[in-house]
Amino acid sequence: MTELANDRFLRALLREPVDRTPIWIMRQAGRYLPEYRATRARAGSFLDLCQNPELACEVTMQPLARFPLDAAILFSDILTVPDAMGLGLFFEAGEGPRFRDPVRSLADIERLPIPDPEQELRYVMDAVRLIRRELNGSVPLIGFAGSPWTLATYMIEGAGSRDFAETKRVLYGDPQAMHALLQKVSAAVSVYLQAQVRAGAQAVMIFDTWGGSLTPRHYREFSLAYMQRIIAELPREHEGRRVPVILFTKGGGAWLEWQADAGADALGLDWTIEIAEAAQRVGDRVALQGNLDPSVLYAGDDVVRAEARRVLDGFPHATGHVFNLGHGIHPGIEPERVATLVETVQSYRAG
Amino acid sequence: MTELANDRFLRALLREPVDRTPIWIMRQAGRYLPEYRATRARAGSFLDLCQNPELACEVTMQPLARFPLDAAILFSDILTVPDAMGLGLFFEAGEGPRFRDPVRSLADIERLPIPDPEQELRYVMDAVRLIRRELNGSVPLIGFAGSPWTLATYMIEGAGSRDFAETKRVLYGDPQAMHALLQKVSAAVSVYLQAQVRAGAQAVMIFDTWGGSLTPRHYREFSLAYMQRIIAELPREHEGRRVPVILFTKGGGAWLEWQADAGADALGLDWTIEIAEAAQRVGDRVALQGNLDPSVLYAGDDVVRAEARRVLDGFPHATGHVFNLGHGIHPGIEPERVATLVETVQSYRAG
Repeated sequence: MTELANDRFLRALLREPVDRTPIWIMRQAGRYLPEYRATRARAGSFLDLCQNPELACEVTMQPLARFPLDAAILFSDILTVPDAMGLGLFFEAGEGPRFRDPVRSLADIERLPIPDPEQELRYVMDAVRLIRRELNGSVPLIGFAGSPWTLATYMIEGAGSRDFAETKRVLYGDPQAMHALLQKVSAAVSVYLQAQVRAGAQAVMIFDTWGGSLTPRHYREFSLAYMQRIIAELPREHEGRRVPVILFTKGGGAWLEWQADAGADALGLDWTIEIAEAAQRVGDRVALQGNLDPSVLYAGDDVVRAEARRVLDGFPHATGHVFNLGHGIHPGIEPERVATLVETVQSYRAG
Repeated sequence: MTELANDRFLRALLREPVDRTPIWIMRQAGRYLPEYRATRARAGSFLDLCQNPELACEVTMQPLARFPLDAAILFSDILTVPDAMGLGLFFEAGEGPRFRDPVRSLADIERLPIPDPEQELRYVMDAVRLIRRELNGSVPLIGFAGSPWTLATYMIEGAGSRDFAETKRVLYGDPQAMHALLQKVSAAVSVYLQAQVRAGAQAVMIFDTWGGSLTPRHYREFSLAYMQRIIAELPREHEGRRVPVILFTKGGGAWLEWQADAGADALGLDWTIEIAEAAQRVGDRVALQGNLDPSVLYAGDDVVRAEARRVLDGFPHATGHVFNLGHGIHPGIEPERVATLVETVQSYRAG
């Protein structure tokens, strides 16, 4: 059993008693921090930063040096997996991510390799091991991956998209090809998350950023089913401890009941649902993580405090809630607002 | 009382008996039609096209010449209103809409005029009158406007946005300024829609494209409340007929019960909710419009037919449903797919 000085994040995910609500922040290691921007400038590109375990470890640790957060999250990107599958990830200045060789045909899909996480994604596993050493039992480390559906949209579009035209063209026009792709990607994500756990990730989160673009029926068939399979394949205990899984479908608040049956320990919530309603709907089946509107941090400290308390007030129990934003922190946020947020959450149920 | 050869669209919105489910298509006058692209090229810019009543009428009529649609919709843009308020709308090639003078301060808000629809927006009213003459009683004409919240996001951001950083900064940091802006915009939208009805619009639709970016509480306070006020101020009868109102919040499927109480006759649905569930939730309070995933039209005719029937199957009654896509038709769609869709819907409950 791993000794952890602070395990309330893991305990909350497993709905075990905690002394107060734990908090971490999606993209807590990111551009809103000047020290991150400095490391990123040293690294070269964003991708160079992801692929350098020492620097990835450095930026992972940065927010923990500033704020008493209850968890660390591996600094990486969901698109490292399709990159390792040979699609050639690159970033153009001021643009989102792109792939040099998007998936264009069933032949392309059949050719896709399942990367060996300790080979093609060795840099991620090395980062996980390094971060664990650096954390030295202070707080748990979260590993993560993109959902197969979310990764597939980038792999087909070759870039971010607003309406997923090409992806939906495949989905409606050739659903078997879409399933073939999702099976490949699921296999890759599955071994990737398993390897993260073996390398030291103490909880894992699946980011289904674009599951909300689907019809309810297709959400189940093309996104949730694959996440469920990945969760079932994960080692649920490691180092003598249960490894909790968080499933987060942005824009998926209408489908919480289905998500609660997918085998995850906790569900992520964006800010378009009241956490009280979500808690009532999922009952005691899963813990919840969320769900402050990240834009609250644009306002002053008083508003940050009031809005954070509103989320905390909405969750009925002292256990089973991990405080977080409903999406990654925006790059333009002042770090001082985060300090206020963390302080507010940590003093809410203390004592 | 206006004589209409085909009034089943209006009857369906009012939940009166109809012989079959009516259909129209959001953005039915648009880039997927080669004849639209030809007129647009003649007009010059998109804005030139909007501002030229003859050409706006021409493109409004184009889809009706191709397909036996049950309604026409005014060709225009939701951003004509903020443009008429002095913000200076323009479009850059390949980019979305922009404003030369976005709203930056409370002083900016206080300075905003309420445009006289028959002056600054005369070109829209002239288009409405012209289209009514051209339609000559064949099918009803739908007028429309953007919701105050949706317009405010563009007015503050100065462009389209992914996370509405500036708008949310105002919302959380200075909610009174946000209300001041929304009151101004609501007043402008209100007189604008009233003028459209007087000019001949036989139904009106409010497009709340970005209401789904709000928390549930803020949706009610900053979007729905203003739409409700506008609906209350509309003349509900004109030319001896009731003028139905359709309220459409994209991504707002979680809030249908609230929307059903806002005074609208019908609610628009995007494709992320099953229409059967929506119908069950709103009961007999409102009609429903939607909700085929627009990307279905990328697939072949067989898929278009099957998916259209799936939506039709989901609506329990023969009355109270207007078939539509869950969002505007994509520019890359083949017009032949639309023909298949219209034929499928119109033959579903006929005879």
